[in-house]
Amino acid sequence: MEHTEAVCVAPVRFETHPKQYVHLRLEIEPPVARLILDIQEDRPLRPGYPLKTNSYDLGVDIELADAVQRLRFEHPEVRVLVISSGKDRVFCSGANIYMLGSSTHAFKVNFCKFTNETRLALEDASQHSGLKSIAAVNGACAGGGYELALACDEILLVDDASSAVSLPEVPLLAVLPGTGGLTRVVDKRKVRRDLADVFSSLGEGVKGKRAVQWHLVDEAIPLSKFATRVPDRAKALAAATPQREGAGVELAPLQGRYSDEGVEHRYVSLKIDAAARVAELTLRAPEGDEPTSAAAIRERGSELWALRVFRELDDVLLELRFNRPEIGVVVLKTRGQAAHVLAVDAALAENQADWFVSEVLHHMKRVLKRLDLTARSLFAIIDEGSCFAGCLLELAYAADRSYMLAKDHGPTLAFSALNGGALPMSNGLSRLATRFLADPKKAEPPVGESLDAEAALDAGYVTFAPDEIDWDDEVRLAIEERATISPDALTGMEANLRFAGPETMETKIFGRLSAWQNWIFQRPNAVGEKGALTLYGKPERARFGWSRT
Amino acid sequence: MEHTEAVCVAPVRFETHPKQYVHLRLEIEPPVARLILDIQEDRPLRPGYPLKTNSYDLGVDIELADAVQRLRFEHPEVRVLVISSGKDRVFCSGANIYMLGSSTHAFKVNFCKFTNETRLALEDASQHSGLKSIAAVNGACAGGGYELALACDEILLVDDASSAVSLPEVPLLAVLPGTGGLTRVVDKRKVRRDLADVFSSLGEGVKGKRAVQWHLVDEAIPLSKFATRVPDRAKALAAATPQREGAGVELAPLQGRYSDEGVEHRYVSLKIDAAARVAELTLRAPEGDEPTSAAAIRERGSELWALRVFRELDDVLLELRFNRPEIGVVVLKTRGQAAHVLAVDAALAENQADWFVSEVLHHMKRVLKRLDLTARSLFAIIDEGSCFAGCLLELAYAADRSYMLAKDHGPTLAFSALNGGALPMSNGLSRLATRFLADPKKAEPPVGESLDAEAALDAGYVTFAPDEIDWDDEVRLAIEERATISPDALTGMEANLRFAGPETMETKIFGRLSAWQNWIFQRPNAVGEKGALTLYGKPERARFGWSRT
Repeated sequence: MEHTEAVCVAPVRFETHPKQYVHLRLEIEPPVARLILDIQEDRPLRPGYPLKTNSYDLGVDIELADAVQRLRFEHPEVRVLVISSGKDRVFCSGANIYMLGSSTHAFKVNFCKFTNETRLALEDASQHSGLKSIAAVNGACAGGGYELALACDEILLVDDASSAVSLPEVPLLAVLPGTGGLTRVVDKRKVRRDLADVFSSLGEGVKGKRAVQWHLVDEAIPLSKFATRVPDRAKALAAATPQREGAGVELAPLQGRYSDEGVEHRYVSLKIDAAARVAELTLRAPEGDEPTSAAAIRERGSELWALRVFRELDDVLLELRFNRPEIGVVVLKTRGQAAHVLAVDAALAENQADWFVSEVLHHMKRVLKRLDLTARSLFAIIDEGSCFAGCLLELAYAADRSYMLAKDHGPTLAFSALNGGALPMSNGLSRLATRFLADPKKAEPPVGESLDAEAALDAGYVTFAPDEIDWDDEVRLAIEERATISPDALTGMEANLRFAGPETMETKIFGRLSAWQNWIFQRPNAVGEKGALTLYGKPERARFGWSRT
Repeated sequence: MEHTEAVCVAPVRFETHPKQYVHLRLEIEPPVARLILDIQEDRPLRPGYPLKTNSYDLGVDIELADAVQRLRFEHPEVRVLVISSGKDRVFCSGANIYMLGSSTHAFKVNFCKFTNETRLALEDASQHSGLKSIAAVNGACAGGGYELALACDEILLVDDASSAVSLPEVPLLAVLPGTGGLTRVVDKRKVRRDLADVFSSLGEGVKGKRAVQWHLVDEAIPLSKFATRVPDRAKALAAATPQREGAGVELAPLQGRYSDEGVEHRYVSLKIDAAARVAELTLRAPEGDEPTSAAAIRERGSELWALRVFRELDDVLLELRFNRPEIGVVVLKTRGQAAHVLAVDAALAENQADWFVSEVLHHMKRVLKRLDLTARSLFAIIDEGSCFAGCLLELAYAADRSYMLAKDHGPTLAFSALNGGALPMSNGLSRLATRFLADPKKAEPPVGESLDAEAALDAGYVTFAPDEIDWDDEVRLAIEERATISPDALTGMEANLRFAGPETMETKIFGRLSAWQNWIFQRPNAVGEKGALTLYGKPERARFGWSRT
């Protein structure tokens, strides 16, 4: 029923640059940037599925994620992003079906998670960077194509006989729209649920005025006026959005070194123990010469520790997800001087009115969310020489549990203002607030305090605090034991325990929607021999088992 | 990988009575009732799995659901329910593993849904009926056993060497606790997420003081004091809970007639078209002689239309879920005089301070929630002679879509005060508020108005309003088309579109938790030939694929 879950042949790499884009064109004409989807049919990430009719695969999405990220850092002068198509009569036909049909279950799930994170980053940019977005839908806009449009602030649709928005996954492929479509239709655009039902079960989608009436799009514009209406709307949106002062900050390549043994970045290392199915992920504090004024921070650019260390962490998390599927436990470690991290945090907190500093903080936040959403068991190991301070302390609260060595002059925890809510989880709460739902006053971090293992254990800041005699055995056994448990059960368990408290559109997408999608992604009706996803494009019609579950 | 999803041999029936209980004993000593789990090993619902160590199957849960329901209606003098075990040294070891291992995927999913609804009914009784509950845990309390305790207001645990609470599903069975356990641990009891992680991955569970410290239980009590402490706590809880005046109302048997063609109740009919995979579910309005004063309503007892029609609906919904798995579309119809329903609603709204009237309303609410959570496509057909008024109109808003016949002197919709929030969905909103998220003022029902198809369509109260010429074809085609779509994709789609807006612990259980559980319930690591659920109790150890997804 299921494809072999082998590691893909060549590892996926996530760093790219507009100059290297294959499928997207980024044209900047401040205050507007245009991102043109012109997907090259003959250049899929892996051979075997031509990317017809502007359909996408992970390779396209990596470029999209990069473009949105760069606009935020490198182009503060851009306040509106217009996403359109470079093809005639098709905006985007969504994720490539043959790619999905020929992927392992694990890849499908991780692909959807990544594309979801990218769509959410687009919305995060709108909310926090004043980078508004318009989907200029000049033709068929199906499935993931419409889901991309849904992530924009406005959807403008050509009003002609053929341009429609649609979510044809359910009727045509027997799967769900996997990139937040159902959630955004009813929760973001607040489309009436019965209309959403009709829309999502209608292969051909909805056009023109009806699409506006149902609130599936914001405007339906005759083709003759489309070319002027789109820039008009872009200008209007830009005018309503505050300017960001000063030049952009270029994101230099990270130039990590990748090998079978792991990844080496300047501040982040990933060490793989394939036999044990354990990875050690270590983050290092800065050296102590980090800038403190907004001007100096800007000057340091992408070499700024706070930006670089989280970009490196992001890269390593994606490495784990896509290239190291069999790693079950990630041991989170830190090294360095707490004072240096606390100084960085203080400088960031003090200068957050500066747009670049604000971007650095929002980037930290997104990477930490990526960590929260990584389906691996996360154990924070607070050992000798560790540096769980301020923003690095968040790792311990993203972890499923933590072990802290209890000894005289042993490791300590140190809190900064950033632990208090500047880096929220996708449920909208800080990690401390999520941890201490039963005791909300503990959501306030004890800024300036430094706690040893005993104090940290008493106050509930760590899970366990073995002494030197027990330390090695206790930590080793815990990791070994975890690595023997069924990975699927752990994924489900962690997805439920990590996100206590309120739900948001974001947690609904990753909790409710993705979980259902993952379920459907293994049902015989979708991926069995006679399943709709398997038989897509073939003359044979899918055959379904009719039991409703 | 998957067991055949055939209909179970003998249909499951859900009506029972304390006199018929096999596994439970209900002892009433006002203000306390004791429910004693004394599960008969040799009397499972289906042959093949002895119910050892107080493990349960659907048969046990049907008795539990009945007991809670009867206490609310029949025993207003009871203010505290103490749940304990009739066995030595074991409280309850949860759902029977062999039963789960030998069930179809569809049965597992529906079993968990029903047990979840029963646990939520226990909490609903605490919140709305002043029926508090105590789990008196006098021994091992594992998996579903602990999940039952979690649904109680208080958990009292014997403090001895062997009594522990545990959720061993993840480490031992490679599945999730399926009855809300993970959600209630972190969201209801607000156990710290790292402690919840340790607890949920520890087969042997947590005992005594540690269980109290982690807030997994409320008290750990030495065995010598347990027999006095439990009644003391029960008395204290009862004293803090207001009394309910007057005698109880006995729930008389419904005596429906069941056949291959469907079910016939006094006010509810289910007509099965097996070939088309469509069922027609019709609710009939009262005759017009329903009582209007609290005293007369009480006098009418379980023959009261408002109580009886929703009890019948409940029975039919369970019939659909468990005995008619291949029915894909449920056509919701109503018949009778709107004025009669509106009179009932007015009487209920006016007398809701009366505990019995309040129970009737909360029962309506629960049954309508059961409808919302039924994984079948629901189409409301508002045709000639229909009676979508007041509480029956809720059916149209529980439906995925509605079709209303447009003609002169055709059907109308009529609103009552009950449409305004007395019958909330599990997301906490009324169905109208969920429908009109984009336009909150429409959450207020136009009480007293009667709308024909054109007016209803204009105001957004129905999805489609075909005229007489189109009616037959449009309705027929819509139903036929729906019945051709993959049932799994529809289940996922409906689970996402029906619950727009806020999430609650209840929606988290059915959305996030159940969806993950359903996913895991089909993973080879759980149910494959070498899966942990399959091999439970056998000498062979499970073998897992290690890919984390």
